[in-house]
Amino acid sequence: MTTSTARTDAAPAVAVIGLGEMGAAVAAAFLDGGHATTVWNRTPDRGDALVARGAERSATVRDAVAAGDLVVVSVKGNAVARELLASAGAALAGRTVVNLTDGTSAEVRELAQWVTEQGAEYLHGQIMTIAPGVGHPEAVVFYGGAQAVYDRYQSALGLLGGRATLVAADPGVPVLYGMAVHGTMWGLLNGFLHAAAVLSSEGLPVRQFLERADASMSALMAFLPSIAECVDRGEHAVEYGALKHHLPSVEDLVRESRARGVDDDLPGSTLALVRRAVADGHADDNYSWLVEHFRGR
Amino acid sequence: MTTSTARTDAAPAVAVIGLGEMGAAVAAAFLDGGHATTVWNRTPDRGDALVARGAERSATVRDAVAAGDLVVVSVKGNAVARELLASAGAALAGRTVVNLTDGTSAEVRELAQWVTEQGAEYLHGQIMTIAPGVGHPEAVVFYGGAQAVYDRYQSALGLLGGRATLVAADPGVPVLYGMAVHGTMWGLLNGFLHAAAVLSSEGLPVRQFLERADASMSALMAFLPSIAECVDRGEHAVEYGALKHHLPSVEDLVRESRARGVDDDLPGSTLALVRRAVADGHADDNYSWLVEHFRGR
Repeated sequence: MTTSTARTDAAPAVAVIGLGEMGAAVAAAFLDGGHATTVWNRTPDRGDALVARGAERSATVRDAVAAGDLVVVSVKGNAVARELLASAGAALAGRTVVNLTDGTSAEVRELAQWVTEQGAEYLHGQIMTIAPGVGHPEAVVFYGGAQAVYDRYQSALGLLGGRATLVAADPGVPVLYGMAVHGTMWGLLNGFLHAAAVLSSEGLPVRQFLERADASMSALMAFLPSIAECVDRGEHAVEYGALKHHLPSVEDLVRESRARGVDDDLPGSTLALVRRAVADGHADDNYSWLVEHFRGR
Repeated sequence: MTTSTARTDAAPAVAVIGLGEMGAAVAAAFLDGGHATTVWNRTPDRGDALVARGAERSATVRDAVAAGDLVVVSVKGNAVARELLASAGAALAGRTVVNLTDGTSAEVRELAQWVTEQGAEYLHGQIMTIAPGVGHPEAVVFYGGAQAVYDRYQSALGLLGGRATLVAADPGVPVLYGMAVHGTMWGLLNGFLHAAAVLSSEGLPVRQFLERADASMSALMAFLPSIAECVDRGEHAVEYGALKHHLPSVEDLVRESRARGVDDDLPGSTLALVRRAVADGHADDNYSWLVEHFRGR
């Protein structure tokens, strides 16, 4: 550990395990930032372009791990991550693993626990951009782990995205944050694509709608802070825009969809939620009350 | 008609039929703008506050219609709107009906057709704010109808919201625009509230998440223009962020939800859509391809 800390006073050496789109972009960002970078991939030739830019290529995960202060892992699933790291044996002790691998919070915590038991440190990183965005000053990365470890490698980790933040000591939190952004995104995109199906069934260009409705569409995100506050406080009373006011509008969208032969499952599922909430006595509550439905209550 | 046009050279007289939250706010906006305003409501005392501010109250819809150049209707459904307007008999001829009543595009067109047959002009207005926002310079109103009619009453109609636009000659288009905004909103809110359920099940404050994830959340709306262009062009090929890359992340959210006892229907329905699209050969297409699902194909 002392050795490792001493070495990081200069640019720490980095090992990157897994050279998919994301891993390759990460290795390139460390190379560009002046870090000695060793790469490993199950199919070695995925590293050719990186080697041409100055990376070392290891034949085994053990050699790569031995060469890095920071061991960055970007593979398909945390079971694979563990199997690969286990193959490094005793070389893992004293390293700092930065795991970028997707998974559930429980899977991430389990891996973090195991890494710690091997005498290594663990940070989890959730990169909130596609591969070409890695290293951009605006790219967001959520980290989870010990503050001291994050601080020690902050300048290196900042190479992956300018908007890097340590969101929790718990390594499981970054994936929950990532899921929250993505889940919101899928909801938004599904709602918008359903709307696009309705508009285009009438021959209305969707891009033109977006331009003309820009003020209304931009305002939608501004609802989220007050919704979040209602959820956090557990209080959903509201003066305007209560669930009873949403109900007839959702009914209209369902009827419009049916009349056009457009999918009515998506608005129909919203209608079922709003109807049930109103029937259960929440007519005068904010839409935020539906968090109780999603909580499975 | 000549009489009516002549009178609109000054501030046109306005009749407001229906004094729910929205109708009352609309009548107040016309009063504040200096228009002679006559109001009618099935329960007359809903007009008390407006009468105190200078409105005339009519005992019948016929008397209200007879007093207005612009006849603004804000009631529960277009069947009610037609029944009320029919009760005005011959008084409707030569008036301009501005219908703010919610409904499907077909219902709105049917009413517009009937109004026109009575010798009156028709504009549809879709107000994109809650009642307290009526009259605000930033409030959006989508109008549909003839350009000449809109132009004649533009300054009066602008009193309902500073961001008023005539989006089509077809009176059914404003409600489709409104549904598109609302459908996108419900998708966004459902996705966000599901995310809030996941975060809060871990004890993570949702407001804090929003602050920390602000850059990522704000970026979501920026995806819509390119999605809209893919839909309009009918071309969904994409270099990064294809459906195959969404798949493992959606799977993670479903597994995370199940593990926490949080609703898995919402992410599960997204997973089913993405899986089917990938199985049908759209693994390398943009998420925008899912518009084909919502089209019911």
